[in-house]
Amino acid sequence: MKKEYAVIGLGRFGGSICKELSREGMEVLAIDVDEDKVNEYKDIASHAVIADSTDENVLKELGIRNIDHVIVAIGDNIQASILSTLMLKELGIKKITVKAQNDYHEKVLNKIGADQVVHPERDMGKRIAHNIISNNVLDYLELSDDHSVVEVKAGHKMIGKTLVDLDIRARYGCNVVGIKRDREINVSPMATETILDGDILIIIGEDRDISRFEKNLVADDD
Amino acid sequence: MKKEYAVIGLGRFGGSICKELSREGMEVLAIDVDEDKVNEYKDIASHAVIADSTDENVLKELGIRNIDHVIVAIGDNIQASILSTLMLKELGIKKITVKAQNDYHEKVLNKIGADQVVHPERDMGKRIAHNIISNNVLDYLELSDDHSVVEVKAGHKMIGKTLVDLDIRARYGCNVVGIKRDREINVSPMATETILDGDILIIIGEDRDISRFEKNLVADDD
Ligand SMILES: Nc1ncnc2c1ncn2[C@@H]1O[C@H](COP(=O)(O)OP(=O)(O)OP(=O)(O)O)[C@@H](O)[C@H]1O
Ligand SMILES: Nc1ncnc2c1ncn2[C@@H]1O[C@H](COP(=O)(O)OP(=O)(O)OP(=O)(O)O)[C@@H](O)[C@H]1O
Ligand SMILES: [Ca+2]
Ligand SMILES: [Ca+2]
Ligand SMILES: [Ca+2]
Ligand SMILES: [Ca+2]
Repeated sequence: MKKEYAVIGLGRFGGSICKELSREGMEVLAIDVDEDKVNEYKDIASHAVIADSTDENVLKELGIRNIDHVIVAIGDNIQASILSTLMLKELGIKKITVKAQNDYHEKVLNKIGADQVVHPERDMGKRIAHNIISNNVLDYLELSDDHSVVEVKAGHKMIGKTLVDLDIRARYGCNVVGIKRDREINVSPMATETILDGDILIIIGEDRDISRFEKNLVADDD
Repeated sequence: MKKEYAVIGLGRFGGSICKELSREGMEVLAIDVDEDKVNEYKDIASHAVIADSTDENVLKELGIRNIDHVIVAIGDNIQASILSTLMLKELGIKKITVKAQNDYHEKVLNKIGADQVVHPERDMGKRIAHNIISNNVLDYLELSDDHSVVEVKAGHKMIGKTLVDLDIRARYGCNVVGIKRDREINVSPMATETILDGDILIIIGEDRDISRFEKNLVADDD
């Protein structure tokens, strides 16, 4: 059977989740105390209702028990976020994801049984800080504390050379797993591939190896 | 010479950028109208000052002209965000990154010369929606509209098989570029590598190929 979702709190974060789940064809119940927000989502979500999620009877009337996964995206009102999570838990919801405002909030949410606690602003702040420091690293995926996949602009020292010439794997210990050229992405680059001006390389490896690679082959382009 | 940064607005997003830049050893001037916020960052940033960034004289007195890159992370007060950006631009700041609240805000920011406009809540909402829909896709990096790098739990159909056995490249058109096992990451997996229970595969490819791979080899584990 198809999973059903509910999003409580249609701020920028909750609203974006609601939109994306709906776009992917999911059943979504959108809830907010604010009528304007609810109106904004009534043609996007499967159902959109004005309701206060801290009111247990309201939650029951909405049939929230039948929902498989509830996302609590209430922001500034930490008390409402905690209370809503507590009641959803008591109503037997199997999976609850909650947006936390700070570490204290997260601790409480974990204690009362939230299954997933997220910090959207904090995580995105970290990503953008890294993007700001290294002009050449366009985007990245953290695989662990010390490994990443990064998108890096090809430096001028690389232009016209092949991957064999550059010998990146042997010299830096990281691997070029893709090349972005114009709007095309080659996800099986050959060793004989020549790097062109404007290419973006997708590289996997240890962070310190990637940094070394970036310092030696890219950084002075800034 | 070392670059200098300023962060205006120490909410969760701006605060996170300020922390991360400082942690990476950068010079950061932290600014907020709210005294409590400024106190929170006075031991983190190089300098932290209480100031209203919509006041041009204040910005001048702070020596903001010497800053290489200013991040405007003012939230709900869209007018203050726009006005601050406009004045920073007029003062000749070379690089300005601004957090937008919505599409209209973004349009105005682009018109008045913001160099980078970001939507942290919206982008993170999209990421988390995808993570919610596919329980098996743990994290991902969008390379383009139709290519990604994803982290996927190995499905039970894969356990005990080698990458050669699974023939993922030929059958699905995507490549396994890394394997996460316990806390180790192998970024040069050999074709003869056997997949173990609990392994996480790092895969690059077209989104529809990755989906097909995920549906056929992983999805029914849920
Ligand atoms: N008890 C409640 N029941 C339902 N919705 C609520 C409740 N309390 C707050 N909300 C709604 O949650 C939404 C998000 O809250 P708020 O704007 O404070 O968070 P935020 O973290 O600043 O949001 P974002 O950063 O995602 O834009 C608002 O639209 C608000 O109306
Ligand atoms: N004119 C201004 N000058 C300096 N700081 C300001 C100004 N206006 C607002 N701020 C500060 O910007 C910070 C962020 O604003 P706000 O909390 O409205 O945004 P937000 O988008 O909800 O934040 P976040 O989601 O990142 O927590 C606040 O700490 C606020 O005091
Ligand atoms: Ca926010
Ligand atoms: Ca990750
Ligand atoms: Ca807010
Ligand atoms: Ca990207």
